[in-house]
Amino acid sequence: MQPNATSIQSLIERALEIALRQRICLIGSGRTDSGVHALGQVAHFSTERHVDPHRLLASLAGLLPLDIRVRALRSVPDEFHARFSATGKIYHYRIDRGKVLNPFTRRIAYHLPFPIDLSLLQKGAALFRGSHDFTSFSNEAHRGSAARDPIRNLTKLEIAEKGEELTLIFEGDGFLYKMVRNITGTLIDVARGKIPLEAIPKIFAAKDRSKAGVAAPAHGLTLMEVQYDQNSQNE
Amino acid sequence: MQPNATSIQSLIERALEIALRQRICLIGSGRTDSGVHALGQVAHFSTERHVDPHRLLASLAGLLPLDIRVRALRSVPDEFHARFSATGKIYHYRIDRGKVLNPFTRRIAYHLPFPIDLSLLQKGAALFRGSHDFTSFSNEAHRGSAARDPIRNLTKLEIAEKGEELTLIFEGDGFLYKMVRNITGTLIDVARGKIPLEAIPKIFAAKDRSKAGVAAPAHGLTLMEVQYDQNSQNE
Repeated sequence: MQPNATSIQSLIERALEIALRQRICLIGSGRTDSGVHALGQVAHFSTERHVDPHRLLASLAGLLPLDIRVRALRSVPDEFHARFSATGKIYHYRIDRGKVLNPFTRRIAYHLPFPIDLSLLQKGAALFRGSHDFTSFSNEAHRGSAARDPIRNLTKLEIAEKGEELTLIFEGDGFLYKMVRNITGTLIDVARGKIPLEAIPKIFAAKDRSKAGVAAPAHGLTLMEVQYDQNSQNE
Repeated sequence: MQPNATSIQSLIERALEIALRQRICLIGSGRTDSGVHALGQVAHFSTERHVDPHRLLASLAGLLPLDIRVRALRSVPDEFHARFSATGKIYHYRIDRGKVLNPFTRRIAYHLPFPIDLSLLQKGAALFRGSHDFTSFSNEAHRGSAARDPIRNLTKLEIAEKGEELTLIFEGDGFLYKMVRNITGTLIDVARGKIPLEAIPKIFAAKDRSKAGVAAPAHGLTLMEVQYDQNSQNE
């Protein structure tokens, strides 16, 4: 869980520095917005010391607050880079559709007690799959990084239903800043009849963030997995 | 979620009193220990006012803290009593078996990173199903209520596996004080090889709480459902 990505990074760096008694710079697979959770974030660091992964994992569990856990630790080739070696990411956006908010999931799911049309949601999702210029669904401009290539390949956008919860599953080769939350917010507007399906291609074509829906709240989003080629990870 | 059953009860009473502008006494299906969660607790109250359940539900959502939600509200016959009309209850005990604690479930699952033998757990569970005198697995004596009939019928005790999580599902006509946590603690000892299967019948026969394992921690336990005869609820 990350109220603030930088502080999580620095907390892990500090724990590593205590455990390894040397200065450590941690490089993550990318930054997530404030309030977005991560279950499968990946980061790397370099050290010349011999590290016993099992013992270091146990030390970190003792040094970190309970809301931050290092789940696994392994050595990788020198060429491995948590960000540049990544080939894809999986995000889940969880929506609690219960009439009444579920206190058990309220910190990790967005409570949306209004009627939504699942068939419109499915049809809308289909329009986002594949390679597109996602400029209209990114906040890169606000971050001053608009010069980045805005073409991304959304290889998967599936909707899973379980009880009162809906999960939007995003898988892609990369994501622009706030892209998942902007797409989710727009799809919710589609499913509630506020944006017609026909408008989606026009919004893509406009390459203008202001044409799409409002970003869905950060707390519903979780980075589930960062993907790498098998080769990049094995020594 | 209930850090303290009495305070949750009084918070809901207070919210009802504000909404209905009259004194309200809420009667729950039973008390749960401090730290035990509830997703399906049931309680009743009496009022002579005309109540619109939909409007009252919305008012309560505004009056209660976010960790306490009234999920549904309906009128019942005068004879209905949340405790005495109950015919059964379902509890889930969640165990996080991950080597590293999962920050996302740490408040509702017991983290047990030690190897456990699932086949022993299954065999142990079978010994608890059915009607037994559960004196050895209850803390009624500590509560000064040992005079209660200690025979309970555990109609179901199943073990569900999902990823790194194990859920013990208890269903029965009634449960003695701390019974689910004491059985769970004992079953964990069985599955870790600390208590042999053959000892279980002897522990039952001893009718002595001190012979069984230590209670599993409260935070892994959730009251999922209180069951009633259809007839008792319909006007």
